Amino acid sequence: MKRQALCRLLGRDFSQPELLQQALTHRSYGAPNNERLEFLGDSILNCIIAARLYQLYPRLPEGDLSRMRAALVKEQTLAEIAGRLKLGDHLMLGEGELKSGGFRRPSILADALEAIIGAAYLDDGFITAEAMVLALYEPLLQALDPKKIAKDPKTQLQEHLQSRKHALPQYEVVAIRGEAHDQEFEVECIIPDLDIRTVGIGHSRRSAEQNAAIAAYKAAINE
Amino acid sequence: MKRQALCRLLGRDFSQPELLQQALTHRSYGAPNNERLEFLGDSILNCIIAARLYQLYPRLPEGDLSRMRAALVKEQTLAEIAGRLKLGDHLMLGEGELKSGGFRRPSILADALEAIIGAAYLDDGFITAEAMVLALYEPLLQALDPKKIAKDPKTQLQEHLQSRKHALPQYEVVAIRGEAHDQEFEVECIIPDLDIRTVGIGHSRRSAEQNAAIAAYKAAINE
Repeated sequence: MKRQALCRLLGRDFSQPELLQQALTHRSYGAPNNERLEFLGDSILNCIIAARLYQLYPRLPEGDLSRMRAALVKEQTLAEIAGRLKLGDHLMLGEGELKSGGFRRPSILADALEAIIGAAYLDDGFITAEAMVLALYEPLLQALDPKKIAKDPKTQLQEHLQSRKHALPQYEVVAIRGEAHDQEFEVECIIPDLDIRTVGIGHSRRSAEQNAAIAAYKAAINE
Repeated sequence: MKRQALCRLLGRDFSQPELLQQALTHRSYGAPNNERLEFLGDSILNCIIAARLYQLYPRLPEGDLSRMRAALVKEQTLAEIAGRLKLGDHLMLGEGELKSGGFRRPSILADALEAIIGAAYLDDGFITAEAMVLALYEPLLQALDPKKIAKDPKTQLQEHLQSRKHALPQYEVVAIRGEAHDQEFEVECIIPDLDIRTVGIGHSRRSAEQNAAIAAYKAAINE
C-alpha cells in the first residue's frame, strides 16, 4: 500500500519490486542493501543529467555544463527530491540509524534515491530510468538559470573582483587536521586590495576554498 | 577513405558524420571542437562501464566496482584503446599541437575517444553507444582480474600488513607546494612495526599517498 504511493510519485511500477525494496534498504539494516545499486544509479544519473544539459544548452562550454550538473546531482539536491517523494517513510534502517533519525539524514536519502535510479535501470533499461529521472528533475531543470547556477563561489568572487578591477584572491591551506580517511582542511582566502582575509573549512581543499570564498564574497560586497 | 577505416574499427557508421568529425577536432583547431562532446561521452562511458561491472561481478562491493571502473576509464586506458583505433591519424589539431606531437599525447587521445562515445550517443542513442563501448572494451573486460585490479596500492599494503599481524600504516602530509591550481603534495607513509618510512609525491593527497604506499609495499615485502 505505502509502496504503491511511492511508485505513483516515481511515475512507475517496478516489474521486479524486490529491486525497489533493495534500493530502500540501508546497509545498517543488513544485506542485501542499496550500496551497489547506489554506485550504479549515481553513474546513470550523472549520464542522464549530462545528456539533458547538453541538449538544453547547445552553446554552453563544458565547464559550465559540468558545474550545472554538479549542482543538480549533489547530495542536497537529491535529498530535496527524496523529500518530495517522502522516501524517509519507506527506508529500511537498522535500529541505531532509526533511533538517530537516519530517515531524515540527507546522505541516506540521497543514496537511496540514487539506488532507486539504479533499480529502475535494472528493472527496465536506460530509457525507463531516463524518463523517471527527467520527470523527477523537471521542476529543477525548468528553474535552472545557467547564468547563476553555473557559478561556484570561487568563480562568483573572482568575477566580482574582476568587475571592480581588483587583483584576484589568493587561497592558502593553513592547516590539515585529522586522519587520512577523515581530514579537515582549513584554507584562507586573501584579497589584498580590500584587506579581506576569511577562513573556510571543509573535508577537501576544494570545499574549504569554496567556503572561504563564500565568506570573502560576503565581505567584498559589503565594502 | 581514412574515416571509413576508423568507422570499421569502431564497428559503426555514423548517420551524422559531422558528429564524428567534431569528436576528432581538438580545441586547438578551432570551433566547433570536441570539448562538449567529451563532457557528454565521459559520463556515458562511466555509466556503461558501471552497469557492465555491476552485472559481471554480482558479489563485489561498490568500493571494488568503483576502483575497477576507475582503472578502465582512466586516461591511460582510454589512450591505449585510442592507439588501437589509430585515432592519432584522424585528429584535427591546431598548428602548435601538430608540431609538438599532440596526436600522440595521451590526454588528447583519451579526450577524443570520450568525444566519439558522446557522438555515438547523439547519433543513435544509448544502446548504440553501449554496444560500441563494450566492443572496444571487450579485451579489457575479459582480462580483468577483480582480485588484482580492485586493489590500489594502499589496499595492497594494508592487506599485506594485516596478513602478517602488523599495525596499519600511517600517512602524513609533510608538505604542500605550489599554487592552488597546480599543487604538489608530499606524503610520508610510516610503518612503525617494520621501521619503514617512505615518501610519495603527487598532485593530490590521494595520489601522493598511493605513491608512498607503493614504495612502502616494496620495502615491506623485502623485510
